[in-house]
Amino acid sequence: MPPCLSIVIVDTLKKILGTAPKTLHEPRFQGNEHRYVRDCIDSTFVSSVGAYVDRFERELADYTGSRRAVAVVNGTAALQVAMQLAGVRSGDEVIVPTLTFVATANAVHYLGATPHFADSEMGTLGLDPVALREWLTHCSEQVAGGTRNRYTGRPIRALVPMHTFGHPCDMEGLMAVAHDYGLALVEDAAESLGSRYQGRHTGTFGKLGALSFNGNKIITTGGGGAILTQDEKLADHAKHLTTTAKQPHRWEYVHDEIGYNFRMPNLNAALGCAQLEKLPGFLVSKRHLAVAYQGAFANTPAVHLVQEPVGCESNYWLQALILDETVADQRDAILNATNEAGLMTRPAWTPMHQLAPYRHCPHAPLPVADSLVRRIINLPSSAGLV
Amino acid sequence: MPPCLSIVIVDTLKKILGTAPKTLHEPRFQGNEHRYVRDCIDSTFVSSVGAYVDRFERELADYTGSRRAVAVVNGTAALQVAMQLAGVRSGDEVIVPTLTFVATANAVHYLGATPHFADSEMGTLGLDPVALREWLTHCSEQVAGGTRNRYTGRPIRALVPMHTFGHPCDMEGLMAVAHDYGLALVEDAAESLGSRYQGRHTGTFGKLGALSFNGNKIITTGGGGAILTQDEKLADHAKHLTTTAKQPHRWEYVHDEIGYNFRMPNLNAALGCAQLEKLPGFLVSKRHLAVAYQGAFANTPAVHLVQEPVGCESNYWLQALILDETVADQRDAILNATNEAGLMTRPAWTPMHQLAPYRHCPHAPLPVADSLVRRIINLPSSAGLV
Repeated sequence: MPPCLSIVIVDTLKKILGTAPKTLHEPRFQGNEHRYVRDCIDSTFVSSVGAYVDRFERELADYTGSRRAVAVVNGTAALQVAMQLAGVRSGDEVIVPTLTFVATANAVHYLGATPHFADSEMGTLGLDPVALREWLTHCSEQVAGGTRNRYTGRPIRALVPMHTFGHPCDMEGLMAVAHDYGLALVEDAAESLGSRYQGRHTGTFGKLGALSFNGNKIITTGGGGAILTQDEKLADHAKHLTTTAKQPHRWEYVHDEIGYNFRMPNLNAALGCAQLEKLPGFLVSKRHLAVAYQGAFANTPAVHLVQEPVGCESNYWLQALILDETVADQRDAILNATNEAGLMTRPAWTPMHQLAPYRHCPHAPLPVADSLVRRIINLPSSAGLV
Repeated sequence: MPPCLSIVIVDTLKKILGTAPKTLHEPRFQGNEHRYVRDCIDSTFVSSVGAYVDRFERELADYTGSRRAVAVVNGTAALQVAMQLAGVRSGDEVIVPTLTFVATANAVHYLGATPHFADSEMGTLGLDPVALREWLTHCSEQVAGGTRNRYTGRPIRALVPMHTFGHPCDMEGLMAVAHDYGLALVEDAAESLGSRYQGRHTGTFGKLGALSFNGNKIITTGGGGAILTQDEKLADHAKHLTTTAKQPHRWEYVHDEIGYNFRMPNLNAALGCAQLEKLPGFLVSKRHLAVAYQGAFANTPAVHLVQEPVGCESNYWLQALILDETVADQRDAILNATNEAGLMTRPAWTPMHQLAPYRHCPHAPLPVADSLVRRIINLPSSAGLV
């Protein structure tokens, strides 16, 4: 009888990571974090305006090759405002992957719109453009002003791919679907800072994109996010909407639309500026870890590591082991054994169409996402582990 | 001919404040801010969980005498969630003052509800319970389940007083109105940390209350807010809702309702813990400033300083000069002269019923608020000015 898979996996992980406990992902502050945060506090500009917010936005735009970046309070807020600026309105439907963190669906809901869940592909873990096109052919019809869900009667307004664990989706295929069906393309690039598709940074393909700098992301601002866009007017509007839509005036308080209190505090941007300086090193370190895991598990039967898709450069934010269907029933035993051994692992998120608040939303057939959810195990992934 | 009022005011301010430029309100970081923030970064827990968030919540509860406090990303988010937990639903109306910062109305809007604007009283600058009762008698009717606006047909669900510039409203009067009309009472205490009504801290009278720690407030966390409540179950629900409504589990991601990414990052809470230690000193300093302004303007005709209402202890967050009606037409000249002299002043907010996005919302007669808006001038108010 072959040794239990969970024992093999624990042993293999220990060979790479050592025996000390390891979290799933933790931040590293070994650069200018203390210096910039101290400087920020000394300036007294810790809040809504400040030099670090401007600098962080400029450096994010430079790094991603986006014309503009607008720093906000978290990735959910970034996605909500990005979709609103892309034209999503109350009563619309928005295509999102079912295999995502709940924030993607929540951001749709906050706009009064309904998420419409679509399937993933095995290679990228992201939305499958072929399956999506087939589904839209079946479920939608063209009407004046765009695409309509023929079953619900609601407009399908936007397409929101999410780059799962930092691996870019098939953007070429998805852009073609968005084009052919007149859908606004907004990228949920919360997990993929540093990831590129055919040389171009994720989050810069659609009309707008959203980044996250939550504590578990490749760089962190404590809590934070950013809206990326190539359109100066949309960027100005994003800044306006996220700063309570107050018209500039020396003293008058006139708000010309209903905005949000979503700006990133300068204190958090100070941390972000220091983190962004370390991003290239984090990317190298996480790639080393991916190579180490791939080597270590190369001869383990019935499992494989997710690798960056062809033509892509992934940030390897979260390392992911995929179990073959034949051993999928051992997922929870493996999760248990690894966590018991102090090596923090977790499964993929419960897919959105299985969550109580989203169970009744429209969705495509979801065989691939359903299969992946039963088989994904995320491994310790922090920069600096190897 | 008497000297121009704006010259008198500039000269009087300079006697108190000196000739160097003064902002309207800026934070002071002369305590443990650097130490706690450094410790937070060293711990690597800068984000969603961490000891400073727990400590800040505990110390806020202790300080305000609230059973619980739940730290969130800003005051707007605190108010939104507080109202949701108080039962405000899409399609409801919520009574709010027209004389407030736009966040009060925005938070109502985010819930799909409609703000219904009511008038202020001259003494407290807050909602006038007498005028409100008269208005409700006229505009509402009792139906099964509560009070309905007889003109719009919508339920009037909640009453949200705001403690303007830190001066407590007439809570006794407002609680009676809320009781008699079956309205949930939620206090917008964004401006009134440190202010007490009959010895009890603002924000603790209603079912729930909301605080703000924005950069311009009496203490700051960069950006931040908190929900206060006397109800353990509501507090637990507030924590759940503001942390994406994820059920506790070692690795599963199950979200049992639609929550928010509204938690306060630990980095910001670290700043808040240090600021809270300095709050008693800030209160003393701001009271000294109030006394100094009152003395200095005692003999200036046609103006008076806003003082704490009888039975209240105000935090004097923003000092406010009120012009008599006879000189109200000089408001902009005074704003201009003071700002030109480097002494930052500003008028009250544009009242909500005059803002384009809220112009069509229901409202009571608003003679007092309209009058106050033409006559209020906020003066430099930072702690440490005198």
